Amino acid sequence: MERTVAKTLVVEGVLNANDAIAQANREQFDRAGTYVINLMSSPGAGKTTLLEHTLERLDGKLRIGVLEGDVQTTVDADRLLRFGIPVVQVNTDPGFGGACHLDANMVHHGLGALPLPAIDLLIIENVGNLVCPAEFKVGEDSRVMISSVTEGEDKPLKYPLMFRSADLILVNKVDLLPHLDFDLPQFLRNLDAVNPTAPRFLVSARTGQGVEDWCAWLLARRPNAGRTSPTD
Amino acid sequence: MERTVAKTLVVEGVLNANDAIAQANREQFDRAGTYVINLMSSPGAGKTTLLEHTLERLDGKLRIGVLEGDVQTTVDADRLLRFGIPVVQVNTDPGFGGACHLDANMVHHGLGALPLPAIDLLIIENVGNLVCPAEFKVGEDSRVMISSVTEGEDKPLKYPLMFRSADLILVNKVDLLPHLDFDLPQFLRNLDAVNPTAPRFLVSARTGQGVEDWCAWLLARRPNAGRTSPTD
Repeated sequence: MERTVAKTLVVEGVLNANDAIAQANREQFDRAGTYVINLMSSPGAGKTTLLEHTLERLDGKLRIGVLEGDVQTTVDADRLLRFGIPVVQVNTDPGFGGACHLDANMVHHGLGALPLPAIDLLIIENVGNLVCPAEFKVGEDSRVMISSVTEGEDKPLKYPLMFRSADLILVNKVDLLPHLDFDLPQFLRNLDAVNPTAPRFLVSARTGQGVEDWCAWLLARRPNAGRTSPTD
Repeated sequence: MERTVAKTLVVEGVLNANDAIAQANREQFDRAGTYVINLMSSPGAGKTTLLEHTLERLDGKLRIGVLEGDVQTTVDADRLLRFGIPVVQVNTDPGFGGACHLDANMVHHGLGALPLPAIDLLIIENVGNLVCPAEFKVGEDSRVMISSVTEGEDKPLKYPLMFRSADLILVNKVDLLPHLDFDLPQFLRNLDAVNPTAPRFLVSARTGQGVEDWCAWLLARRPNAGRTSPTD
């Protein structure tokens, strides 16, 4: 299967190049004292709505910046402009392999538009997709994924890499549970099967339920909460 | 930007090879007299649940087969076994580019397990993803996409290729509309902006609403409804 081997080599080459750039991004984040979260989910799982609640709640407590990844449009970045924080939009449309994810090089280009030393927490909102974003490191400290209860309880089994690589799982849209046939205990068992250790919070970006736990988690991530980083 | 050019050539080579195999698949479908639908959506938009309703309703009216595409597991294929129809599962895990989509070659391999001449309608349930599945033809006659109202009204703008390439759009989970902030008229305007011509049905795979329209559309797709295909 010569063709399969050739394709595998291409993929490995791409991933190696990506890892090198991700490492450079990471060094840039560390120098600036910026903690970086790679936020991933299906399309429409509620990433941007959750971000809006997060920015409202952490206003004045944490200097937050956002890098928005989308195939096209600046819809998400536009929604965040009202918060007056640094936001940059990266559109993946001309990228490799259908551009269904951010890669380290795309993030690297976006960083040029962000004042990193003035950002405590950078949230990278990845392209909505449960497969490829998990394969590409971008230099993040943590991976957070959002799984909406409207998506069904089988998703951890069907997209194990995404769920396995997450450091925190936000189970979103729990306000809809009374109107769904979603089996929450079964979902949590499926999640345990692929990632038994990551904490999980039940949240509703719509009603605000659980957003306080999520924000507390974010505040605890900061290595130097007193902002005494020697590199600032 | 030498690297960008090299990457583009790789992508074009992959797509050209894919198109050639898609054409071969298509000829195989035509010889067998099988009408083929490529069914696409986000993860958890309701493809398999809708399929279950469809199979119940069209039992005895159309000989249906299903090719299930997933990154991992046979969860979806297992759900369809009770219908006693030909079902084959294709797992994309070892494939190219993260395997977030079916390509023509994967479908070609799956076809070996299906009795095509005994299948009037083959439904290919693609991997849940709003980006790459739209880039890879698999030899289908029509593309049908499902967009769930839980995903938000901005999705046609953010994933225009998927919405533009669809021949029919099923707006699913409309039973949840009373519990969401979803702006249906705005969604339909966004859909018109990228695909003004494709018909769209409001459906609920959970309550069965609109499933009759969808099944009527399927029955009308068959070129030889009286099963007089000369190639049978």
